[in-house]
Amino acid sequence: MLNTPPRLARQIQFIVELDQLKNVLRRTQLIDGSRHENSAEHSWHLAVMALLLQEYAGSTVDVGRVMRMLLVHDIVEIDAGDTFAFDAAGYMSKAERELAAAERIFGLLPEDQGRELRALWEEFESMTTAEARYANALDRLEPLLQNLHNSGGTWRQYHIDRAAVLRRLAPIQQGMPELWPFVVNAVDAAVQAGYIREEA
Amino acid sequence: MLNTPPRLARQIQFIVELDQLKNVLRRTQLIDGSRHENSAEHSWHLAVMALLLQEYAGSTVDVGRVMRMLLVHDIVEIDAGDTFAFDAAGYMSKAERELAAAERIFGLLPEDQGRELRALWEEFESMTTAEARYANALDRLEPLLQNLHNSGGTWRQYHIDRAAVLRRLAPIQQGMPELWPFVVNAVDAAVQAGYIREEA
Repeated sequence: MLNTPPRLARQIQFIVELDQLKNVLRRTQLIDGSRHENSAEHSWHLAVMALLLQEYAGSTVDVGRVMRMLLVHDIVEIDAGDTFAFDAAGYMSKAERELAAAERIFGLLPEDQGRELRALWEEFESMTTAEARYANALDRLEPLLQNLHNSGGTWRQYHIDRAAVLRRLAPIQQGMPELWPFVVNAVDAAVQAGYIREEA
Repeated sequence: MLNTPPRLARQIQFIVELDQLKNVLRRTQLIDGSRHENSAEHSWHLAVMALLLQEYAGSTVDVGRVMRMLLVHDIVEIDAGDTFAFDAAGYMSKAERELAAAERIFGLLPEDQGRELRALWEEFESMTTAEARYANALDRLEPLLQNLHNSGGTWRQYHIDRAAVLRRLAPIQQGMPELWPFVVNAVDAAVQAGYIREEA
């Protein structure tokens, strides 16, 4: 736009770019089973969950930073795509693809803001702070709820067994220890219902 | 789930309910024009914008509260549906429909949390705080960017004229005064491009 200050122009360009995250589809289906979830609405859901479940976060977390982390944690998928939780080969190249994406996408922003968002993304990925552990726990809890309600979803579709599901959900035990009994009960109920395979 | 503490059970039930916001469609199309936007991904977009554009918010705002406000501001649409910006009749019944929705949906939560989310929604609707004015400004800015990039979108589809567009965008002047010249430039460019009708 004519006469737009350069800093604002970069911010607007980034905000326009963000719209593409609404077209990045995850493997998980919505709770009503009607379609795949996209990474933008997924990020929204997690941020609201962060607000509501903070009492289970184990230690005193800065919930504002958790929400910011969750809002930006999937932005790199605009270039790198979503990597399916149970795709071992995809996970081999995930870090490299996402690093290149972070360079390009966060590089659109004014430098101070690019650095800020990138730091949030790196913190989420590192899982080294209480905030990052809580954020990662929420990122595992949401698809658990979806699969539970849509007849097993990706667990059933990809014949995942109980041990693999529990390994995938383990960050919940780290980030929200109080919730772990609920998770194990839910997984056992899903095994009973035939949504998750018993161990071999 | 068996043995789930009642407070957690209510929180989980609410989180499951939230998934439905992903199926509430707005009139606005995505920037690539591929489909209508839903209210969940819209809320995500606004919350990230709140983080990035806070320097234009005019007075010193608590950006954490703005983000929480934006994350919850459309939840009532699960029952009430989205009311189109330029639908005068729909706006007549909007408050009543959304009030009933707030009663039911926020009532699913433990009482303290229901009260907290409802207060955020009421603050957004009231536009009486600097935070609410900034949040409302963002809520008007996002569809402006979408319509600009998808050949006029709802402006063109519903033959909206320049004066009506500027009235709809006026909260940006209140909540982000520094951005108003950009907005007026954008609207004038959209009139030039034939996306917005000149005044009668």
